[in-house]
Amino acid sequence: MISRVASEMTPPPLEPLVHVPLQDLVGLLERILVRYGASPAVAAQIARNCAAAEADGTRSHGVFRIPGYVSSLKCGWVDGCAEPVMDDSAAGVIVVDARNGFAQPALALAASHLAERARTNGIAMACIRDSHHFGALWVDVEPFASQGFIALSCVNSIARMVPHGGQQPVFGTNPMAFAVPRTDQLPLVFDQSSSAIANGDLKLAAREGRSVGAGLGVDRDGRPTTDPAAIIDGGALLPFGAHKGSSIALMIEVLAAGLTGGQFSFEVDLPPGAETPRTGQMVILIDPAKGGGKFFGRRIETLIEALRGGGATRLPGEKRYEQRRQTQLNGAPLSRAELASLNELLSN
Amino acid sequence: MISRVASEMTPPPLEPLVHVPLQDLVGLLERILVRYGASPAVAAQIARNCAAAEADGTRSHGVFRIPGYVSSLKCGWVDGCAEPVMDDSAAGVIVVDARNGFAQPALALAASHLAERARTNGIAMACIRDSHHFGALWVDVEPFASQGFIALSCVNSIARMVPHGGQQPVFGTNPMAFAVPRTDQLPLVFDQSSSAIANGDLKLAAREGRSVGAGLGVDRDGRPTTDPAAIIDGGALLPFGAHKGSSIALMIEVLAAGLTGGQFSFEVDLPPGAETPRTGQMVILIDPAKGGGKFFGRRIETLIEALRGGGATRLPGEKRYEQRRQTQLNGAPLSRAELASLNELLSN
Repeated sequence: MISRVASEMTPPPLEPLVHVPLQDLVGLLERILVRYGASPAVAAQIARNCAAAEADGTRSHGVFRIPGYVSSLKCGWVDGCAEPVMDDSAAGVIVVDARNGFAQPALALAASHLAERARTNGIAMACIRDSHHFGALWVDVEPFASQGFIALSCVNSIARMVPHGGQQPVFGTNPMAFAVPRTDQLPLVFDQSSSAIANGDLKLAAREGRSVGAGLGVDRDGRPTTDPAAIIDGGALLPFGAHKGSSIALMIEVLAAGLTGGQFSFEVDLPPGAETPRTGQMVILIDPAKGGGKFFGRRIETLIEALRGGGATRLPGEKRYEQRRQTQLNGAPLSRAELASLNELLSN
Repeated sequence: MISRVASEMTPPPLEPLVHVPLQDLVGLLERILVRYGASPAVAAQIARNCAAAEADGTRSHGVFRIPGYVSSLKCGWVDGCAEPVMDDSAAGVIVVDARNGFAQPALALAASHLAERARTNGIAMACIRDSHHFGALWVDVEPFASQGFIALSCVNSIARMVPHGGQQPVFGTNPMAFAVPRTDQLPLVFDQSSSAIANGDLKLAAREGRSVGAGLGVDRDGRPTTDPAAIIDGGALLPFGAHKGSSIALMIEVLAAGLTGGQFSFEVDLPPGAETPRTGQMVILIDPAKGGGKFFGRRIETLIEALRGGGATRLPGEKRYEQRRQTQLNGAPLSRAELASLNELLSN
């Protein structure tokens, strides 16, 4: 199941917590991924992505995802040892064939070249195909903003969402992430799915017997429902903001799959055990110094001051950064059950 | 007042209609704009943009806008004779200073260079600053898609929208438009504001005495209302899709203003009579042949077939194209009152 969390985050587990130092968590996740068939280099990438999500409180993309990674590796759906191949299609474009591996190593291969192209040309794009992206997308864009670039990325996933006005799922939850560099501050970053509710929140509501709001999903017959179990059991999600979120999801299919040569979300045919989407990813970098505006950094601070003055209590990404500081001080808060499950993956 | 229409369109006026041939309408609008201070070249650009919106049934950006153009020209807020200046900041970027003129002539100046850069580099961007965009945005991107490019554009406008969780308007209705080339077909195009309802639709509803849906706006005390007059009269719009539409509006402030050097929406201080936003615009072109995917045109048709198979009765832009065919056959349907108002602008 694919899901994305935007600025909202699920609360930490209620059970007694163990605070795991981040480096220990990364090491543990690496060992798990290697055990189930990832190369050490790939395991390191995915472990870092996953631990970063956990560190920031994006729990739905943290260790919660490890069983999905493991299951997809075990059944051979994703190649954990794939070596991505980079190609040069034009001065502003880096093309990467992930060769049925994870998207993160493919982007890592392209990253420094992409940054160089963006610096030279003002704008550059990475097109990744045949890749599995099962992690948080903000993790991909934040480092580019830390290097001074505006970064935009989108990924398509697995058909779980009905286009506005339709009856059958065609789109994935199709997230986009956007990052803006700030002067002497962590970047301004948002990461949001194109669906009205994240899959994880839906599952939580189902487990707790709560109904969800109207307009979030349909049942297996395409009828609107507020019963989360009916949405999960053969039903589908709806886009955020009706036809407008649906258009965003469509744009992401075009950019992340149509343009790159990845599969569309509705083309992903998961065999038993497979959980990761075999699709594509697109990343655009812009050098703000080339856009014609002066003092970009100062201008962004002016915009942020206006947002705060207008009563916006929190900027996108801000809550994550607060959680990151907590994790850096205390370690990542995992329940004993979560930690036991991870260790079990190494021992059985 | 700034507004944008997405795929939804307002019904034609109920009064007896006059069907005006499109070329006659363009000519009439040109004469009006020249009379109130636009140069013939600028008047031709704006008249074509406005008539194209009317032809496609995007009534809120058609002749409905002419009094706003006239008023902004009369009070000297926008320079109808401005000559935009183009600069070259990097291989992939065209920078244009619109010099307080309309955005459309600035983009027209950049268009062929932008297309050439996109063809060479795979991706290219135009950054327009100090520009007034008061027209439909799809008119800007469709021609690029007709030339084979994926085109994305965004414009910021005048603070009329409260960020999610905030109390004061900071964002404009900030539209984005996206166009995808199709083989032997008109492009796939969407154009949508970041607000839950477009300002133009709101004004039309107020004029016609209709109430609007819930969750679209607040009154002057920040209370939710369905009365369009209360939203217009000191109230404010809300973003589509809560925090997600709010993030899109923020992204557009960064790209259309922060990056280009245009004013942010909250910085636009309209003097009496002024209605057009003095802000900025960004356009990205992508050559789909450089993205690594094969048979882009065929792949887009596969995506469209899936959308139709999934029950999506209409693609973005499709209703506009239907209306366009009607207009080409019969002329643009204007009410006698609308036509009289236009003629009055020439005679008084």
